[in-house]
Amino acid sequence: MSPLPDRVELLTDLYELTMAASYFENGMADPATFSLFVRKYPSDRSYFVAAGLEDFLDYAENFRFSESDLAYLDSTGLFSHGFIDYLKTLRFTGTVYALPEGEIFFQDEPILEVTAPIIEAQIVETFVINNKNFQSVIATKAARCVHAAAGRRLVDFSLRRTHGIDAGLKVARSSYIAGFVATSNVLAGKLYGIPISGTMAHSYVSSFGDEIDAFRAFARLFPDNTVLLIDTYDTIAGAHKAAVVGQEMAREGRKLIGVRLDSGDIASLSKEVRKILDDAPLPDVHIFASSSFDEYKIAQTLKEDANIDAFGVGTRMGVSSDAPYFDMAYKLVQYGERPIMKLSTGKVNLAGEKQVFRRRDPQGRFLEDVIGTRDEAMEDASPLLEHVMQDGRLLRKHPFLDEIRERFKENFSALDEKYKALQGVPSYPVKLSARLKAVQKTASS
Amino acid sequence: MSPLPDRVELLTDLYELTMAASYFENGMADPATFSLFVRKYPSDRSYFVAAGLEDFLDYAENFRFSESDLAYLDSTGLFSHGFIDYLKTLRFTGTVYALPEGEIFFQDEPILEVTAPIIEAQIVETFVINNKNFQSVIATKAARCVHAAAGRRLVDFSLRRTHGIDAGLKVARSSYIAGFVATSNVLAGKLYGIPISGTMAHSYVSSFGDEIDAFRAFARLFPDNTVLLIDTYDTIAGAHKAAVVGQEMAREGRKLIGVRLDSGDIASLSKEVRKILDDAPLPDVHIFASSSFDEYKIAQTLKEDANIDAFGVGTRMGVSSDAPYFDMAYKLVQYGERPIMKLSTGKVNLAGEKQVFRRRDPQGRFLEDVIGTRDEAMEDASPLLEHVMQDGRLLRKHPFLDEIRERFKENFSALDEKYKALQGVPSYPVKLSARLKAVQKTASS
Repeated sequence: MSPLPDRVELLTDLYELTMAASYFENGMADPATFSLFVRKYPSDRSYFVAAGLEDFLDYAENFRFSESDLAYLDSTGLFSHGFIDYLKTLRFTGTVYALPEGEIFFQDEPILEVTAPIIEAQIVETFVINNKNFQSVIATKAARCVHAAAGRRLVDFSLRRTHGIDAGLKVARSSYIAGFVATSNVLAGKLYGIPISGTMAHSYVSSFGDEIDAFRAFARLFPDNTVLLIDTYDTIAGAHKAAVVGQEMAREGRKLIGVRLDSGDIASLSKEVRKILDDAPLPDVHIFASSSFDEYKIAQTLKEDANIDAFGVGTRMGVSSDAPYFDMAYKLVQYGERPIMKLSTGKVNLAGEKQVFRRRDPQGRFLEDVIGTRDEAMEDASPLLEHVMQDGRLLRKHPFLDEIRERFKENFSALDEKYKALQGVPSYPVKLSARLKAVQKTASS
Repeated sequence: MSPLPDRVELLTDLYELTMAASYFENGMADPATFSLFVRKYPSDRSYFVAAGLEDFLDYAENFRFSESDLAYLDSTGLFSHGFIDYLKTLRFTGTVYALPEGEIFFQDEPILEVTAPIIEAQIVETFVINNKNFQSVIATKAARCVHAAAGRRLVDFSLRRTHGIDAGLKVARSSYIAGFVATSNVLAGKLYGIPISGTMAHSYVSSFGDEIDAFRAFARLFPDNTVLLIDTYDTIAGAHKAAVVGQEMAREGRKLIGVRLDSGDIASLSKEVRKILDDAPLPDVHIFASSSFDEYKIAQTLKEDANIDAFGVGTRMGVSSDAPYFDMAYKLVQYGERPIMKLSTGKVNLAGEKQVFRRRDPQGRFLEDVIGTRDEAMEDASPLLEHVMQDGRLLRKHPFLDEIRERFKENFSALDEKYKALQGVPSYPVKLSARLKAVQKTASS
């Protein structure tokens, strides 16, 4: 039995369907273009990392309502039989331009544009925002953690407090894109091929009468993969016992990988524990730390000269606790030949089909972005949105996850350090091209 | 094609499996009891609402690793063939005591206790926390919104910004438990039988040349279910057009249900729009408001004498933006005959098998809770944890969702108003029984 639905086409806001019904009854089938973008930086953010495209493309390519979906819609009494019949054969036949996963983007920039008969372009709205927003929120949060860790390894420990099952999987994938080296999530390991990591909890240590018995039992079974959790009773006493076990392993030609700290003043404890291990002498035994880490606590802990080789980063990354959502919107920007601008207070969008161009210096570092029209070309700037789907069919295979991860790494190294500050960050320059400005005048007039 | 996995037994932290392997190799199979509780109130919280039990019980009752799960585990090279063979036939055969969904609970109180051979009790940890924590986070946030709305109807609009697919469904269910009247999430309507709600987006209005044409087309198709979104261009002008359409509908013997405000100064606009509708005269046409509402903004808007009949509550509730996680833990509290207390800094747990007792006054209002031992009885207080599973089998059918919703409503009305304040709330009294205190002494000595 699966606790999850087998199809997700009904995972949509009801208004997508009532609007579709009205378009259907009124014979409105002109192509519409919708644009996906973030309206506003949350506090402390100055860049975003794109993730979640693969899920949307798979969904769009396989879109169809099941018989039971249609029976449910019929049972609501809201829709005509003609419309239900129409939904039976509805497929997604649109065109998609999108920023590849792992790319960096900024406020106001379109990261995905869909062009399709208006019903199709509208009906995917909820799913596309749900996927792209959440996964980009997490990839961005994870990138901030990776940057704060300044080269130390990070492992995703968030599964127990992510917002459900699907979230747990997507956090593992999005954080891996942003440079995490592994996840504790075994299913993510199976489905995505991400390295998995984990050894023991406090309950394991408690279930043995003596702490050192627990350590020895684990080391015996996992001679190449032992990280001992040393804070169940007292971290310093635990470190001394771990050193004993590390010495025993060394005598047998095996190697203790590390110890883990999970409570208390981590910076201070890490220095004491490092000394105990170095004196053993076990200088190669690493120190892992977990316990409410996010980019802020990582940065603070390292500032206090903590001696930590790797961090387990859990809840606060997995829910992006300081910014658990972006103000990401999917807006109609063209219907037929008409560019559309929505004018509600504080909610303006950029009309027309667009492209994002990025200027780099001769060393490849980002200088500025220009949002232009889809059909213009810029001599000294590269277009970022790729044509990934035509007539509802994918134009290329999905990139491998490690390619996406590599793309992010290259991009991130080309972004100036000043935009990576954790707080008080300046805005990266994003301009509009002259042609796009002209389109806006047409739309608003 | 489903974007979701068909089984979720591997949705677990790797350490659950490495610990299990060690227990297996060391022949450790004594019954262990684990206790699930929230360690600490997030700021502004003084009560929690339990949700997510049904998913855990279904998971536990159906627990088994698939062939492909086992093949993956084997491929990691971490586990012996003997252990993989053991996992083939592993089922959950434990006992579960749990707080029913819809009950109110407080810091430190166990809301679920599992007793099973230690491997089984340990291996469900990640899933049980993932489910219970998230769903309780949302039910609690939703309850705060319902209270702030002081009788006005609330509809869940959060799907587009929940943390994935599964989260969208669970938010709809958890917010319905806490008193929301409907959701925009169509799949939640199909799967849970929750009423669904929704009419039109700004893109719908924009796709017509003139706003009033969009209104008329919608009203024609949905004569009994029309709520007009009036802020696409200018809210006041939109309200006048809605009044015209409302008058046209009235002349045909039909009724405009409402108008929706989605931007600007909602309190002030709601008063102007109410006047326009009353003057039409269309006094029965309701005013719906959406746009970044949560309990704080609802309370503030009503304080400004807003004239609003119902709120669409979206993102901030659906991610519980001010408290996107609780510090919920699942701790070993007994192994064999030995009560266990973990002593890491700041992470103490209550040892032994427990029960929560609630004292009420003669009118049924909550007075205080007492955490006691599982086997004690209290004359003047009722036990809250129910024996819901024995030997891995459910002892009762799942309650209907409307029963859970009713249970919450009764409970919430029995909780003193002072604990429902949005900020600066006092702590509800939770004591330990003398017998439980005695157990703690044994455990810590």
